[in-house]
Amino acid sequence: MRSLFFENGLYIKEIPVPLPSAGEVLVKVLFSAICNTDLEIIKGYMGFSGVLGHEFVGEVVSPAHPLSGKTVVGEINCSCGLCYLCLSGRRTHCSARSVLGIAGHQGVFADFICLPEENLHMVPDSVPAHIAVFTEPLAAAIEIFEQLHIKPSSTVFIFGAGKLGLLISMVARLQGFEYTTFDTVKEKSDFTAGLGIHSKLLSDLHPDEKAEVCIDCTGSPEGVSLALSHLWPRGTLVLKTTVAHTASPDLNSIVINEFTILGSRCGVFKPALNLLQRKLIDPSPMISAIYPFDDILEAFESAKKPVNHKIIIKHG
Amino acid sequence: MRSLFFENGLYIKEIPVPLPSAGEVLVKVLFSAICNTDLEIIKGYMGFSGVLGHEFVGEVVSPAHPLSGKTVVGEINCSCGLCYLCLSGRRTHCSARSVLGIAGHQGVFADFICLPEENLHMVPDSVPAHIAVFTEPLAAAIEIFEQLHIKPSSTVFIFGAGKLGLLISMVARLQGFEYTTFDTVKEKSDFTAGLGIHSKLLSDLHPDEKAEVCIDCTGSPEGVSLALSHLWPRGTLVLKTTVAHTASPDLNSIVINEFTILGSRCGVFKPALNLLQRKLIDPSPMISAIYPFDDILEAFESAKKPVNHKIIIKHG
Repeated sequence: MRSLFFENGLYIKEIPVPLPSAGEVLVKVLFSAICNTDLEIIKGYMGFSGVLGHEFVGEVVSPAHPLSGKTVVGEINCSCGLCYLCLSGRRTHCSARSVLGIAGHQGVFADFICLPEENLHMVPDSVPAHIAVFTEPLAAAIEIFEQLHIKPSSTVFIFGAGKLGLLISMVARLQGFEYTTFDTVKEKSDFTAGLGIHSKLLSDLHPDEKAEVCIDCTGSPEGVSLALSHLWPRGTLVLKTTVAHTASPDLNSIVINEFTILGSRCGVFKPALNLLQRKLIDPSPMISAIYPFDDILEAFESAKKPVNHKIIIKHG
Repeated sequence: MRSLFFENGLYIKEIPVPLPSAGEVLVKVLFSAICNTDLEIIKGYMGFSGVLGHEFVGEVVSPAHPLSGKTVVGEINCSCGLCYLCLSGRRTHCSARSVLGIAGHQGVFADFICLPEENLHMVPDSVPAHIAVFTEPLAAAIEIFEQLHIKPSSTVFIFGAGKLGLLISMVARLQGFEYTTFDTVKEKSDFTAGLGIHSKLLSDLHPDEKAEVCIDCTGSPEGVSLALSHLWPRGTLVLKTTVAHTASPDLNSIVINEFTILGSRCGVFKPALNLLQRKLIDPSPMISAIYPFDDILEAFESAKKPVNHKIIIKHG
């Protein structure tokens, strides 16, 4: 089968169709999507080599399986189910986990993928496959609300109107609180506003303006210090992006202002599928292009351009 | 009156007895104590100059005042009561605040001090004055439990057995959860164990051992990274000390492990007085020496020695 392999460079490689282990299901990939993490990995992040990709929608093809023929999305962390972290409700942090296309597990930029059955979620009929491919990043956006109680009377600043920043903003918009999404680039800020998101240029943010919750999705080493400077004492800064180089925030300011800094990673899929099914989140304007699998190297070049949002791959 | 003044060096200076403003009370200082923050200030922290000191117990001497003749302790943040932070329950973070002996307010290393009446708490008769002087740092220790719900089934690592680390450990010991207090110095670790605190040398902590809550009271730039390396995913690191030079923790590890980092500063006095009155916290073994006020410069030299714990000043 075809796959996109990363090892000292990115190339298309013919590899055998994977064989499901016990508890695993074989899935034919219908659509996949390129995430910033994929772009970081090919810069060296995580030291991963193998088949890339973790955002996908597919069809179960394991014969005689109850889900056979069903359209599914899949959570990306494969856990042992036995360790302290699994048994204390932190399966996505399982110390023995593998992660689809990120650590120790074949990724989804391929014709087929094997995944534990417990990771799969059926896609409702009313959600088209090219929309369902947003489930994983949308779940990561919703994870903030799984971790943190943001009161409807609160104020929230979202820094960075990239792919994740937009999805977080779309979810924030549903909560009732005051929020503003900031970006340094006028075109991105205008695009964000066009999605119905309350958007401003970062240069229009007065140094004295503060929020109770700041969310850093800048993907920039300076994002943390910027966000802290706009946080009320006892407020919470949510860190959402990983970057190759990190900068040091002023730790004394964290103590003096009793700030909370909260790291946030993968989320649960059901609430994301619910919001897509209810059409409360419509990520379709974020699709910049859909490439056939055979043009996936070109798709990666396209994904690197800051002007582009989501690049989707159509398999088969 | 006598005062300990800091301005290009530390010296005893004769200054006028302060005059209470509206809402303020004149207090005769009975005992004061030297805090690490005082030692940081004379190194340049906060850029403060004036009368140092914020830990005290005193007697109200404003004539005809209802509290006249009463023994009191006093919260150190003087707030406006009118700003957004005051009105949202964050008076200790008031943007117009002054702080006793730290920022814009005469400190307690003097014969008399003026303080807003609302900052004062009566000391119960059963708490001796030289014990009541621990109210402020004990309140700072209790602040962690005001901010964070630590479950009785949790595990807690406390890094640093200095003055604040010991008080935090004494409060932790009351909560039922498993906790260990680590220090790098054998004498300090032994002293800590002698107080009935579960104490270990840091070198006896295996790199793989982890806790759900880590509390950094090392006062060392490397404390944060050390504590993060012993934190379970989704655990909380409490930052308790401010240091002149801060080191950068790995921000990616905060995102990947969904850590929470929580800054913690001043606390409320009533729970501290309650624990002292109930004799559930006995800080008396922490008193390394009591100096008369006239020897306060010598007391500061003594407080700088790592082997010493609390240095107390007896006024009058």
